[in-house]
Amino acid sequence: MTIETISEQRSFGGTQGFYRHVSEETGGVMRFGVFRPPLGRGDKAPVLYCLAGLTCTEETFAIKAGAQRLAAELGLVLVTPDTSPRDTGIDGATGDWEFGEGAGFYLDATTPAFASGFRMYSYVTKALPAVIAANFADADLSRESILGHSMGGHGALTIALKNPDRYRSVSAFAPIVAPSLVPWGQKALPRYLGDDAQAWRAYDSVALLEDGARFPGTLLVDQGQADKFLEPQLQPWRLDAAARAAGQALTLRLHAGYDHSYWFIQSFIEDHLLHHAAALHG
Amino acid sequence: MTIETISEQRSFGGTQGFYRHVSEETGGVMRFGVFRPPLGRGDKAPVLYCLAGLTCTEETFAIKAGAQRLAAELGLVLVTPDTSPRDTGIDGATGDWEFGEGAGFYLDATTPAFASGFRMYSYVTKALPAVIAANFADADLSRESILGHSMGGHGALTIALKNPDRYRSVSAFAPIVAPSLVPWGQKALPRYLGDDAQAWRAYDSVALLEDGARFPGTLLVDQGQADKFLEPQLQPWRLDAAARAAGQALTLRLHAGYDHSYWFIQSFIEDHLLHHAAALHG
Repeated sequence: MTIETISEQRSFGGTQGFYRHVSEETGGVMRFGVFRPPLGRGDKAPVLYCLAGLTCTEETFAIKAGAQRLAAELGLVLVTPDTSPRDTGIDGATGDWEFGEGAGFYLDATTPAFASGFRMYSYVTKALPAVIAANFADADLSRESILGHSMGGHGALTIALKNPDRYRSVSAFAPIVAPSLVPWGQKALPRYLGDDAQAWRAYDSVALLEDGARFPGTLLVDQGQADKFLEPQLQPWRLDAAARAAGQALTLRLHAGYDHSYWFIQSFIEDHLLHHAAALHG
Repeated sequence: MTIETISEQRSFGGTQGFYRHVSEETGGVMRFGVFRPPLGRGDKAPVLYCLAGLTCTEETFAIKAGAQRLAAELGLVLVTPDTSPRDTGIDGATGDWEFGEGAGFYLDATTPAFASGFRMYSYVTKALPAVIAANFADADLSRESILGHSMGGHGALTIALKNPDRYRSVSAFAPIVAPSLVPWGQKALPRYLGDDAQAWRAYDSVALLEDGARFPGTLLVDQGQADKFLEPQLQPWRLDAAARAAGQALTLRLHAGYDHSYWFIQSFIEDHLLHHAAALHG
């Protein structure tokens, strides 16, 4: 549980830090960011995990989403994991921005090549929370919520649907809602989970809903209509249909003119933080 | 006056764009960013120039300062120039983060080696505004203000002091207030302006005040007290003393725990935008 501080800097009266630690879960050094809001002595704040997308690192959301201002005001700890293990030395784990390092898909791999290190589902749901609990006395791990962008939106939604009693709220920007049915997932899932598409359903929000998973709160999803990945990779209408069929509460907002970038995320991050704060402080 | 669009992306109901153009002033291709707030058809918004520091580009302030949210609300066009000409081919203009490319110091060089390209004073005060006026119909060039960080804070303060009737307001984060007296300036100024220190005074806020320059509004300056450059390079107390001696209105705020980074800038950018909006919309 020992962590090393890479940097800690004052921001909005709180602290933005970056850290690294050796994770048994992923078998190597993992980096993560933590923003801690200003708190009174002995006070604790709930934790919001922020999962980034393909090619991103623990820095991306922290630097580009503009979340710290309101997190400071609302009293939220923001935890930003990296998107995969790094320097794995695994053949095929580098050189492709859609797969491997930087593209962990928030699942526990089962194929021989990737099963040892690519365990981002367990890392985000178990290993990292334990590290936070052990090292950040002002983080209240009894109150957790989760959000994500793109591949991280996929991560947030699937993790929340698989753990409906654990997370108090979930939201996503431009999530991959049905990876089993789109090129990004059809490239990554067989290599991580094998060729049996049945196994992919455990990491597919639409399939999870079809198979009976439910989240007690409303899923909040924002999607830009000028997002070049909208049609080929994201297809939020599949989530809408599955949620309606399942009776799952979903707020899906489509925004004219916005693309897939953090310029889009920062424009609507406020609504997401308010959504999570209402659940975490409620 | 032709510009090429590198990218334009929707953000906060407005547009963040990056552009390039060939500048006669600097003799090469220059890049800049423009954030345009949401406006009614035919409406215009005033312009706030945002000058970045050593090593930065036209992207740095745009990506890291978190200014677009409030600029959208307040109706401000944000213009972010690069910090120097690029790819100059001038011997000695690369390889040192404190001098040359990325370190233009917002002056017009006079030494033979640098006089042709390193004309960031004229670029920021004349060439770039002309490009903005010609290409952005919603930018109201009759209302301009200026801010900056570090070397860009030096740029903002010296440009405002040298053009007191032009800019409606000025502010700075952690500015270099007396470059003639600190290592950054003592390295750069002789190479740009020659060895006669008398010539440096035209690009030195403290010297400008000593030599009679005044700005009609209040200079707003924020400085972090955990800034590692505070003692060796920034020395805001020199600006405080010069302003008091000159009768120049100055608000100098020292912030415990904050460093030199954009984590500091984003924490206080709101106050600066409100400062400028009051002057620009007043």
